Amino acid sequence: MPHIALPEGLPGIRGAMAFRPETAKPLNDLVEVLLVGPNTLPPGERELIATYVSSLNDCYYCQTIHGAIAAAHLKGDEDLVRRVKADFQHAAISDKLKALLVIAAKVQSGGKNVTAVDVEQARGFGATDMEIHDTVLIAAAFCMFNRYVDGLATTQPRDESMYRERGKMVAREGYVAVSRTYLSAVPVGR
Amino acid sequence: MPHIALPEGLPGIRGAMAFRPETAKPLNDLVEVLLVGPNTLPPGERELIATYVSSLNDCYYCQTIHGAIAAAHLKGDEDLVRRVKADFQHAAISDKLKALLVIAAKVQSGGKNVTAVDVEQARGFGATDMEIHDTVLIAAAFCMFNRYVDGLATTQPRDESMYRERGKMVAREGYVAVSRTYLSAVPVGR
Repeated sequence: MPHIALPEGLPGIRGAMAFRPETAKPLNDLVEVLLVGPNTLPPGERELIATYVSSLNDCYYCQTIHGAIAAAHLKGDEDLVRRVKADFQHAAISDKLKALLVIAAKVQSGGKNVTAVDVEQARGFGATDMEIHDTVLIAAAFCMFNRYVDGLATTQPRDESMYRERGKMVAREGYVAVSRTYLSAVPVGR
Repeated sequence: MPHIALPEGLPGIRGAMAFRPETAKPLNDLVEVLLVGPNTLPPGERELIATYVSSLNDCYYCQTIHGAIAAAHLKGDEDLVRRVKADFQHAAISDKLKALLVIAAKVQSGGKNVTAVDVEQARGFGATDMEIHDTVLIAAAFCMFNRYVDGLATTQPRDESMYRERGKMVAREGYVAVSRTYLSAVPVGR
């Protein structure tokens, strides 16, 4: 049961966002810029970074929904998402993305853990400063989202088909568009 | 030295924000709603939560600037800020704020660590659901900001007077207004 009276029927972060639309707005804007906006990193790769960090933080809701969004971007390849979470060094992804995932994991364990060597490694595989910046901020942002979702003990249904369907919708329409429905439709629970 | 080519002369998160104004916008909007916007928790108390979490994450820039902003809201009481960071249970703050700081520390160490007992304790001292929500999200957000600032190895000058002066300015004008100057004036470093 959630720690506070969140609106019912909205799992994970959606309940928390409906409870507090004032903070939901910048949170959705942030994730839209980071994961959907123009970028040399494809949306599927950015979602893999978000999914991987969420799995390191053991957040069921975030790793499942972002894993589903990643898979939707990656032609439905759910197996690749599972492999990245379990052992990305041996997954069928580029060396650049592997080096960025190393940086993301360091950020997850604490910002100071990122070393100049990690960054040089990523640069050696072609990562730009902007890609390194966005990787650090995506990893940092999911350290926030994961704590927000679990810190309020939000409802997190174990229903994979729900995440799969929603993942396709978010991949198609983006975060801001999809959140508009429940942010306006649900009475604020305060 | 920063891991990527951030604009010079802008310490901490300001350099990172000037590098990437697209993400700076929602980040500033978020911190404005959380720390400046209308709230039953006074701005000084919200800044103390941000400062305390930043000290747990050992982020020099964030704990120093938010400590300075907190002090500016608290009639210049820098000693209170130091006491909250060192041992908040014996600081001259309300039992409600102590209970909220317990929750904030749990969020910092991982969202799942917040217990129903922690939340009941805060409620017993008069905390509302909204105050508990905002405490969780402030703590979670600073787990992001701290990782962002340290993960890029931003410049963090050890000059207390700089933080003190800027702290007064942010306390007076807010985050969005203060960031406008450097977000528009500095060429984007990409």
